Amino acid sequence: MRPSGRKPDQLRPIRLEPGFAKYAEGSCLIKFGETHVLCAATVEEKVPPFLRNTGRGWVTAEYGMLPRSTHTRTDREASRGKQSGRTQEIQRLVGRSLRAVTDLTGFGERQIRLDCDVLQADGGTRTAAITGSWVALHLAFAKLLKDGAIAKIPLIGQVGAVSCGLCDGVAVLDLDYPEDSTAQADANFVLTDTGAIVEVQGTAEKEPFSEAQFAAMLGLAKLGVKELMIEQRKAVGL
Amino acid sequence: MRPSGRKPDQLRPIRLEPGFAKYAEGSCLIKFGETHVLCAATVEEKVPPFLRNTGRGWVTAEYGMLPRSTHTRTDREASRGKQSGRTQEIQRLVGRSLRAVTDLTGFGERQIRLDCDVLQADGGTRTAAITGSWVALHLAFAKLLKDGAIAKIPLIGQVGAVSCGLCDGVAVLDLDYPEDSTAQADANFVLTDTGAIVEVQGTAEKEPFSEAQFAAMLGLAKLGVKELMIEQRKAVGL
Amino acid sequence: MRPSGRKPDQLRPIRLEPGFAKYAEGSCLIKFGETHVLCAATVEEKVPPFLRNTGRGWVTAEYGMLPRSTHTRTDREASRGKQSGRTQEIQRLVGRSLRAVTDLTGFGERQIRLDCDVLQADGGTRTAAITGSWVALHLAFAKLLKDGAIAKIPLIGQVGAVSCGLCDGVAVLDLDYPEDSTAQADANFVLTDTGAIVEVQGTAEKEPFSEAQFAAMLGLAKLGVKELMIEQRKAVGL
Amino acid sequence: MRPSGRKPDQLRPIRLEPGFAKYAEGSCLIKFGETHVLCAATVEEKVPPFLRNTGRGWVTAEYGMLPRSTHTRTDREASRGKQSGRTQEIQRLVGRSLRAVTDLTGFGERQIRLDCDVLQADGGTRTAAITGSWVALHLAFAKLLKDGAIAKIPLIGQVGAVSCGLCDGVAVLDLDYPEDSTAQADANFVLTDTGAIVEVQGTAEKEPFSEAQFAAMLGLAKLGVKELMIEQRKAVGL
Amino acid sequence: MRPSGRKPDQLRPIRLEPGFAKYAEGSCLIKFGETHVLCAATVEEKVPPFLRNTGRGWVTAEYGMLPRSTHTRTDREASRGKQSGRTQEIQRLVGRSLRAVTDLTGFGERQIRLDCDVLQADGGTRTAAITGSWVALHLAFAKLLKDGAIAKIPLIGQVGAVSCGLCDGVAVLDLDYPEDSTAQADANFVLTDTGAIVEVQGTAEKEPFSEAQFAAMLGLAKLGVKELMIEQRKAVGL
Amino acid sequence: MRPSGRKPDQLRPIRLEPGFAKYAEGSCLIKFGETHVLCAATVEEKVPPFLRNTGRGWVTAEYGMLPRSTHTRTDREASRGKQSGRTQEIQRLVGRSLRAVTDLTGFGERQIRLDCDVLQADGGTRTAAITGSWVALHLAFAKLLKDGAIAKIPLIGQVGAVSCGLCDGVAVLDLDYPEDSTAQADANFVLTDTGAIVEVQGTAEKEPFSEAQFAAMLGLAKLGVKELMIEQRKAVGL
Repeated sequence: MRPSGRKPDQLRPIRLEPGFAKYAEGSCLIKFGETHVLCAATVEEKVPPFLRNTGRGWVTAEYGMLPRSTHTRTDREASRGKQSGRTQEIQRLVGRSLRAVTDLTGFGERQIRLDCDVLQADGGTRTAAITGSWVALHLAFAKLLKDGAIAKIPLIGQVGAVSCGLCDGVAVLDLDYPEDSTAQADANFVLTDTGAIVEVQGTAEKEPFSEAQFAAMLGLAKLGVKELMIEQRKAVGL
Repeated sequence: MRPSGRKPDQLRPIRLEPGFAKYAEGSCLIKFGETHVLCAATVEEKVPPFLRNTGRGWVTAEYGMLPRSTHTRTDREASRGKQSGRTQEIQRLVGRSLRAVTDLTGFGERQIRLDCDVLQADGGTRTAAITGSWVALHLAFAKLLKDGAIAKIPLIGQVGAVSCGLCDGVAVLDLDYPEDSTAQADANFVLTDTGAIVEVQGTAEKEPFSEAQFAAMLGLAKLGVKELMIEQRKAVGL
Repeated sequence: MRPSGRKPDQLRPIRLEPGFAKYAEGSCLIKFGETHVLCAATVEEKVPPFLRNTGRGWVTAEYGMLPRSTHTRTDREASRGKQSGRTQEIQRLVGRSLRAVTDLTGFGERQIRLDCDVLQADGGTRTAAITGSWVALHLAFAKLLKDGAIAKIPLIGQVGAVSCGLCDGVAVLDLDYPEDSTAQADANFVLTDTGAIVEVQGTAEKEPFSEAQFAAMLGLAKLGVKELMIEQRKAVGL
Repeated sequence: MRPSGRKPDQLRPIRLEPGFAKYAEGSCLIKFGETHVLCAATVEEKVPPFLRNTGRGWVTAEYGMLPRSTHTRTDREASRGKQSGRTQEIQRLVGRSLRAVTDLTGFGERQIRLDCDVLQADGGTRTAAITGSWVALHLAFAKLLKDGAIAKIPLIGQVGAVSCGLCDGVAVLDLDYPEDSTAQADANFVLTDTGAIVEVQGTAEKEPFSEAQFAAMLGLAKLGVKELMIEQRKAVGL
Repeated sequence: MRPSGRKPDQLRPIRLEPGFAKYAEGSCLIKFGETHVLCAATVEEKVPPFLRNTGRGWVTAEYGMLPRSTHTRTDREASRGKQSGRTQEIQRLVGRSLRAVTDLTGFGERQIRLDCDVLQADGGTRTAAITGSWVALHLAFAKLLKDGAIAKIPLIGQVGAVSCGLCDGVAVLDLDYPEDSTAQADANFVLTDTGAIVEVQGTAEKEPFSEAQFAAMLGLAKLGVKELMIEQRKAVGL
Repeated sequence: MRPSGRKPDQLRPIRLEPGFAKYAEGSCLIKFGETHVLCAATVEEKVPPFLRNTGRGWVTAEYGMLPRSTHTRTDREASRGKQSGRTQEIQRLVGRSLRAVTDLTGFGERQIRLDCDVLQADGGTRTAAITGSWVALHLAFAKLLKDGAIAKIPLIGQVGAVSCGLCDGVAVLDLDYPEDSTAQADANFVLTDTGAIVEVQGTAEKEPFSEAQFAAMLGLAKLGVKELMIEQRKAVGL
């Protein structure tokens, strides 16, 4: 029995609010239960130095948590003067995941910057950030399309993410914070709409896991991401 | 005529949502029109070194803006590695303002930390932060009271804040961003429920102003803060 | 009775030494009693990026304290690796104050940088810095004029500053450190030679004050700044 | 055909030199072909604050690259003033991997710090670092055992790591730099001597991969790590 | 002929003003011609961690330049966020030089911190800083003696410093900035009142020099420091 | 009797391994006994801003220690976020020393960057770094010559360095760590192949020394550097 009463293959209630950030070119507030992440896409008319004069664009991400998004307060990174290793790891992951489904030759020398800010954290913030960022990115591209800046939306497909874990030896989908902190192992899966793997990160600080256990988690993740993608499509009007 | 069509003495629509941050000891999302600030109070069971063994508590504040709270994106301070002078100025102001109405001897050696995070910015974020922080602080004290940690709420009174400006020589209340960027001068007023002044900051980068103009702005601020305080009381159930 | 024996409307002995910094384009050592601030103006032949190709100039300021300018030693900011919030607040204030009386279109695409370094601190360093910086700025412009780089001194008027406070309910002029640390409230006034207000910052961490008390402080400030401006004019030979 | 002429399941020549760092409590220079990483273990007689008075120890890691370990020079992180996201990601991975096979209750309140410094980099530095660190850690424990500080070596088993990739759709083992930069996808596997998974990180920036491809990579990794563990045992005299 | 018209063995006019920093426990403004350095000693009632419970004291130094002490403005280190290599090199040199003539067992577990701030720079700031710091240190010890905290002044002797250089092959004493920037080589000598060497730093970026040339510079330095020490003794009343 | 059993004028065993860093344009692992420093030269096709369009090149150096190069672990500077004063002092010294024998007009607008990384530290790392860097620099120039980028090797001569110290009043050559930490005084000499002095740094924190003692140390240094230069020439094939 999961602490939340959910079945092993059951997501938390998912809710997406596209357009939440009024001034952003694209945005989405995404809720996985009590985990709330605001994803906002900014279109910049210049690219990083290594892409200048290549005709290619770039997609990158930044991640942050409000100090009191967490059960006990987390120090403000701006005030400590640096981003933690965890923050950097997450924002690199979000950036790679979105680039994997973007045609970087399809929107000129522009950079799309995705800001993922956690308003409330109850586990799974990085997977919510990826899933919500796809919506924000799609909306930003839709705005470029509407403005005549591009001829079509340069997204190859959808990308979504969810975590799975092993609790008492059983694979479960979409860990919340109480499960996350007691799980034997957990893994984050970033998948495309064709079920292919974009990123996978599995960690077993408590107890190593077997290939079969890994496959069980991946199986759940595929189901979960499929559900998430229905919500993504609704949010962007597909 | 103001860009927003408001009358000179008219506030933007004000809305307070107490308890917005589920995990904080006290919180309030405050909206002054399109300016949205989330204020969250954290109770810490220790004080800064200079207050140890004095029996006194402390109230302090931190301030931040989501990168895409603004019309064009603002760099993330955590990623630049330091807080701007503006940020520091604001968080010092918020802390002083709240301390001015708090009995620091009335809640033991505890520190209340107020996190003011701007979700959306359309002018007046610092005054919204002060006004909303009073609610978050009151709610945090109410929780301590309910938990039996203190015998009564150690607030001497209410504190609220609003900005005023001179536009085309006329004093107007509660500037939004378009007014703020074109005003001849502007001032922020932090007032108590007795109408006394806690903080006043007036700036005339475009054109110096007279004592009479200052008095006109103060007059409007008194009216505005009185309205804000009605909302504060509703939010905390007084 | 004030600790220094001064009357409520009496400034400390004021002394200005123009040209103190031999290598600067303009400079002034200003003394408000035991508060000594060295103001040095540097003319730079380029402007910040946001002003390039606008034909306009800029005036900015930096502020620092020698570690042993204070009664007990203050840590060196260069060694701690960052400037305090207080330092940043002051240097922003000095910059705004000087820009308010400068015609930024009158000296080409140049930046004047004002370095205000406190050699000795006994209260009122920010007001001394503003008052002395006007002299340094005037002298730097005089040098540009003499060198034929500009046709006239692009200063619209004088700017000076002084602090006032409420001690035992009475408004007093030009607080020294012992008064500053015990005052119920204090305010810094930055005024022009026409008596108009450029900046006002009032703070009541101990006890809120009334509009009448504020007016009393402003009245003293007007008198004080008038005296300071006589010294400024002497220092620049007007 | 691989650029190096290796077969898909062939490791680069592996060489371990235990005791390379004369002053460290345990050390190992590990070479995966032209990738050379020096792993040095330091025993500290204190633990991080969160473990004080728990009777438990800790294992942590730091990672760095010599500026000219790489084909073109990489900026020195000490000179830039901060560690990159990549560096932090790697050192967190190495620490977690080693902790997964260490009995943290078996060596008192001590911290073992593993310094992994890349002398030469040709792909796979993080997997070499994990594999070599196990040797350094074992040797440091052996020293504590010999000194009578512990009763037995608190390692639950071996841990080793290797990367795999998909090149032209084929899974290959132990990527060198030329392969790494052209692979469609790559994954790092951290495995125990029982073949269980401690960490897995798969990334497909070029092209998403299937579950079957992932399984093929994992199969190769199991073979590779088995070979690496023979070398580990030789290096520590088991 | 030297640019200043001085003879090869002639110091610039030397002037010491003891007690310049009113609040410091000991201080001295020292002028070597147009080079002006304010040296202030602070007595702290605690020592660095490595000296706790040893009964020994410590002497350390910090160094800074006012931004406009120089012919063209130098960036403020506090604003850049770090001290330059040159600054750190100089403050380490000043600290070592003073410790060399101090009996560190003779003033209890106290730290004397010497702040050397350059008000005006025309070459030779580090040698002026050492020479002036000895006076500030002596005065601080004299205060401790007068306060009954120590029984005698724990200085083994005097220490002073001067630079020499090779200009057109000729050794000259006490370089000013124009000479310093054109000299073939220059050396700083820190000497005791017995003529012994405490520190010597010779640099030949333009052209290597011979042992004989080095001896010629040392000879001049001995003469120069002897004169400086007369001024030091006057300044402390010996 | 020296702790190592060496005679006063005896170097430690010296060993140079040119080409140790496979990817660098020039490199040398240099061993002075148990002190091992890897020197790697990188040729960059651009110069610092102050040399642009002058036709001149630049030589600069960076220095670092592996955390466990030392007897007890030294904190990683990249992780502390800044380089120590000692590190900066050394890398400035190495850069100046190499520039003193380089014709900066002889290799175009290029910068050679010398990375000196200490793999193992037993005293004398800075002198080993200088001596080894000359070899790395020569090899990098040889590569430019072979590639046809320059017409001849722009080195005016050789430069080498060694430390000397006073132990029990006797001058000894090439201090190892045990001697270094107990010596009364020590000095580092950077000399050319003609015996001229490029840099000299003598320090007497324990006890000031006489001119005769300094001369004795310099005499030993000349002998030592002569031996080092034989090894340098072998290493570069002269």
